[in-house]
Amino acid sequence: MSVPTDGDQPDPMADPDYREAVVDLLGAMAYGELTAFSRLAADAELAPTLPDKAALGRQAAHEFHHYELLEARLKELDADPARAMQPFVAAIDEFHDRTRPSSWLEGLVKAYVGDGIATDFYREVSAYLDPGTRELVLEVVQDMGGAEFAVRTVRDAIDRDGSVGGRLALWGRRLVGEALSQAQRVAAERDALGGLLVGGGYHSGGADLAEIGRMFARLTGEHTRRMGRLGLSA
Amino acid sequence: MSVPTDGDQPDPMADPDYREAVVDLLGAMAYGELTAFSRLAADAELAPTLPDKAALGRQAAHEFHHYELLEARLKELDADPARAMQPFVAAIDEFHDRTRPSSWLEGLVKAYVGDGIATDFYREVSAYLDPGTRELVLEVVQDMGGAEFAVRTVRDAIDRDGSVGGRLALWGRRLVGEALSQAQRVAAERDALGGLLVGGGYHSGGADLAEIGRMFARLTGEHTRRMGRLGLSA
Repeated sequence: MSVPTDGDQPDPMADPDYREAVVDLLGAMAYGELTAFSRLAADAELAPTLPDKAALGRQAAHEFHHYELLEARLKELDADPARAMQPFVAAIDEFHDRTRPSSWLEGLVKAYVGDGIATDFYREVSAYLDPGTRELVLEVVQDMGGAEFAVRTVRDAIDRDGSVGGRLALWGRRLVGEALSQAQRVAAERDALGGLLVGGGYHSGGADLAEIGRMFARLTGEHTRRMGRLGLSA
Repeated sequence: MSVPTDGDQPDPMADPDYREAVVDLLGAMAYGELTAFSRLAADAELAPTLPDKAALGRQAAHEFHHYELLEARLKELDADPARAMQPFVAAIDEFHDRTRPSSWLEGLVKAYVGDGIATDFYREVSAYLDPGTRELVLEVVQDMGGAEFAVRTVRDAIDRDGSVGGRLALWGRRLVGEALSQAQRVAAERDALGGLLVGGGYHSGGADLAEIGRMFARLTGEHTRRMGRLGLSA
């Protein structure tokens, strides 16, 4: 299905399938940010020093601001934010329940690795979006300095005690496994969202299977690079 | 450029005892806000609906913003924020550990009642502060709409099930008891902060014991009124 082009910018939301896919995407991102916010703020309790606690709190407060941007856009689209988020609650909650950090460092690795994968994925998806939605998505996934902080703290900890690295590398693999299994579940259940990637995007082309394969290769490559920055093998 | 004259405002921080008392006060408030932020954000996980979760998250994000204001002022005063907060960590953590909400409603009552008592107390203290510090304290204790939300939600719950009221009233009494016992501990340990109230304030008059008694009567009265607004007996 292609969007009418008669000189003027057409309203991308005139196509109901596309609009549904965007509402799904923003709903998933909104619940992801809201949950990341409260989990991260709770993990701040594990921080060993007050400046660390404040740094993690600052990152959490940014996530909440991102949630507010997504909520506002959903309202602009006449979508009910709670209803848009609902389909993603089970998968996102289950991801967090299965990856509850048992230490401050596990929490940091989770924030860095989890945020990183989500960010890369949303950046990939943004290629299939109309310009207005793309701009919002890119703003929301912007790193607010949390990555820098996580890398520095985790590397320092490994420098002090080498055995920490092996355990955190295992933890990183578990995070990716759980994230992928929940992502598959969402993709299977939400046709509109899946359609964004395969044939239903704004330019109506979407990606073919070979392109999806390349996308996964890019996501995996970025993850390996990120683990390397932490001083961990992926 | 002006040359100081008798008519100019003297720098209130020129008095080292007064400066120490202000750093203590801002440190206690900063750690209180930072902790309220992460506890409240964690309690948001207990919210029964997504709009409730977002509402509590919004309140938590405001607490973090208040923390940032206090941190910035401490830096302006050449005080290290972490060092200023440290003396209050044990008392504030113990208060929260002893009053961990076991339900969404307990969390809301705690946020409303706890925040209310702290706000009233800091407003009373602000009478003994220099104008610049007073303005900051009053800004930080400003209610951001969380009270309205808590009152509505708790009253609705009591309307639906009357037995809820009795249990929450007991919970409210426990909150006040724990808050008072930690406040006494802080007052006993921190001479500078106590001195703000008794004779060491900006106008150096401070309060006499009769005035302190009246202040406690006002705080208790406000607490009773607040419990009444929730539909609970104090």
